[in-house]
Amino acid sequence: MIHLNANDLALAKSLAQLKAASGSHSPSIATLKEALPSLKITIDACFLSNPYATDLFMQELESKLLAKQGLRDALEFYPSQNHIIAQKLAKYLHIDSPHIFIGNGAIEVIQAVLHNFVQTNLVVPIPTFSSYYEFVRNDAKVLLYKLPKEQNYTLDIEAYTKFIQDHNAKNALLINPNNPDGGYIPYDTLRECLARLRHLDTIIIDESFLHFAYEDSSLEQISYTKLAQEFSNVVLIKSMSKDFGVAGLRAGYGIMAENRVRDLLRNGYLWNVNGLSEFFFNLFCDDEFLQKYERVRRSYITQTQEFFKALGQINSIKTYPSRANFALIELLNGTKAQDLCIKLLSSYGIYTRSCSDKIGLEGEFLRIASRSEQENAQILQALQEIFSAC
Amino acid sequence: MIHLNANDLALAKSLAQLKAASGSHSPSIATLKEALPSLKITIDACFLSNPYATDLFMQELESKLLAKQGLRDALEFYPSQNHIIAQKLAKYLHIDSPHIFIGNGAIEVIQAVLHNFVQTNLVVPIPTFSSYYEFVRNDAKVLLYKLPKEQNYTLDIEAYTKFIQDHNAKNALLINPNNPDGGYIPYDTLRECLARLRHLDTIIIDESFLHFAYEDSSLEQISYTKLAQEFSNVVLIKSMSKDFGVAGLRAGYGIMAENRVRDLLRNGYLWNVNGLSEFFFNLFCDDEFLQKYERVRRSYITQTQEFFKALGQINSIKTYPSRANFALIELLNGTKAQDLCIKLLSSYGIYTRSCSDKIGLEGEFLRIASRSEQENAQILQALQEIFSAC
Repeated sequence: MIHLNANDLALAKSLAQLKAASGSHSPSIATLKEALPSLKITIDACFLSNPYATDLFMQELESKLLAKQGLRDALEFYPSQNHIIAQKLAKYLHIDSPHIFIGNGAIEVIQAVLHNFVQTNLVVPIPTFSSYYEFVRNDAKVLLYKLPKEQNYTLDIEAYTKFIQDHNAKNALLINPNNPDGGYIPYDTLRECLARLRHLDTIIIDESFLHFAYEDSSLEQISYTKLAQEFSNVVLIKSMSKDFGVAGLRAGYGIMAENRVRDLLRNGYLWNVNGLSEFFFNLFCDDEFLQKYERVRRSYITQTQEFFKALGQINSIKTYPSRANFALIELLNGTKAQDLCIKLLSSYGIYTRSCSDKIGLEGEFLRIASRSEQENAQILQALQEIFSAC
Repeated sequence: MIHLNANDLALAKSLAQLKAASGSHSPSIATLKEALPSLKITIDACFLSNPYATDLFMQELESKLLAKQGLRDALEFYPSQNHIIAQKLAKYLHIDSPHIFIGNGAIEVIQAVLHNFVQTNLVVPIPTFSSYYEFVRNDAKVLLYKLPKEQNYTLDIEAYTKFIQDHNAKNALLINPNNPDGGYIPYDTLRECLARLRHLDTIIIDESFLHFAYEDSSLEQISYTKLAQEFSNVVLIKSMSKDFGVAGLRAGYGIMAENRVRDLLRNGYLWNVNGLSEFFFNLFCDDEFLQKYERVRRSYITQTQEFFKALGQINSIKTYPSRANFALIELLNGTKAQDLCIKLLSSYGIYTRSCSDKIGLEGEFLRIASRSEQENAQILQALQEIFSAC
């Protein structure tokens, strides 16, 4: 058992209040720092991004914008319209720009797709990212499909398609790799699933963590663009906050049928990109940047998988198999996830996500992001210390 | 008449193509620069912002973020949620934060309000900012109310309320000062208008240019917060791009009944603020910043009104009375607005907004923004040269 002292308990109380005000999400680092200025967060393992990609972006920003006195222009003037930004991404995504909808973060794309294209009902596998069931229209029904714990929350397409059929569902969600467990559906299995669900109005595939996944040891980047072209009911949604490490920019996109993009742009989403996210989207026209990015993507995956392997060695916890950049760990020795969270934060400055509030998880769970190699080593050491003292 | 040479005509053609791709709006400077790299734009008089406020913001950014190595954190991590940002603005706006909805630019607030709260119909005085009739829901009807040219497009509240009554309208729009003419409805007249329209579901007041308006020579800042508290059907919408000179940040807000903010946040708009706009919103908790801003606001109004007075002296054009930071000018000697636009751009590097496509304007019109004192002098000189040669 983890022993919390008076300070820990006070911290737990403050955090619970901030958490209550943040809905189903963790309070941001900025919010935490303002509310609890004495708290020292040294590692944000709540935040699911590749820190090496952030390094790369900051270097590009420095050399291509700041050093050229371009910051003022980027902040003073209006950015380009949605369809202009889509043209910048088109080459990188290997799809014509009228299929691309640019979002102020993936969350805006999720909201736009759910509000505009998901009527009647939506099947949502749980555990999952809560916005998918929280952001549905008031007149649409959410049908929760429980991923089986005994199969490590892996999606079984036989069972999933049967559930969809049995409930006469019109729309379904697939997140691959899934959040919060990191479970991965291989490409061919996913394609088979889509082939069975041709009759649905919309299948949302959230590919926000896809750059961290791999099919084999070559670590080739996986793309679902072809699937979106083959199956016209597919809507791909992607956050760029995670793989490119730039959540503060707010950048995401959707790939979908042209008429859907047209529908969305007809009466909205005109200037939803800001000056710095436009700079970011411009980088996708730059082969040199893409090559550098590919290097940091691969080395981060390698480090991440080593981190997960080491997590798997720690007694008293179970680490679920993940091809994302976070691991879901289950506490087996009676420790409360919330207590471990507080201990990591108060004694080690490590901020993690307790998953006690995630519907679809039964047990005591924590989600831990892979950060830099050095930070991952610190996280491992902290966990080893805590559990050896238990 | 203005004579255009072969280069001018080629430029006109390129601009027309870019304009066609930009809908009812001008292509952004970024889009123009990319599409026409040889074009030299030295003054953007299309862009309706206070450049001194941009200077001030850049100084604050430099000293409070960049110099403190805070840029990476702002771009790497998630910004705070909508309601947290609202709390920062609440003190400045003198209203409780549950009345405040933060937008990724005013355009997002316009879209949210039109899509969620404007059913059946909306009365829109024209000429106006086109998004108000373009962004209405597909099932809502726009009732265009033509502002009378013979009264300088000034809104007459008797006639306006009668029109609303006659059409059994449920929702109405007021932009004050109005865009593109800068016409201003005095506070007491506006209040009287709202008192007559208590029975409407929603009255949208767009106050995006209000910081440039004044009731008398004291140039006191005008606020409609009290009106929004007195009349529960009022929704205030404000862009912060204009008065604070930061269009690239994307920052705007709406003030409305608490239940409306709750409705919007219930299934959307969670993380629509970016890291740098959060930094900007933080400035509103800083009295020193607000004092500095107040100084640049007042001096800019003084310079702007002097600029308009000088514009009014130029032969062959009529300058409409404006209490915004732009002037609508009408060309009286048979010159085409589009030709003047091209001439200003090709020979002087001055980018202006031809208003030929604005519905509700009859004649040849150009909208010219007030920029810095020096730039305004250059604009005046260019116009004097062009019209003395005509």
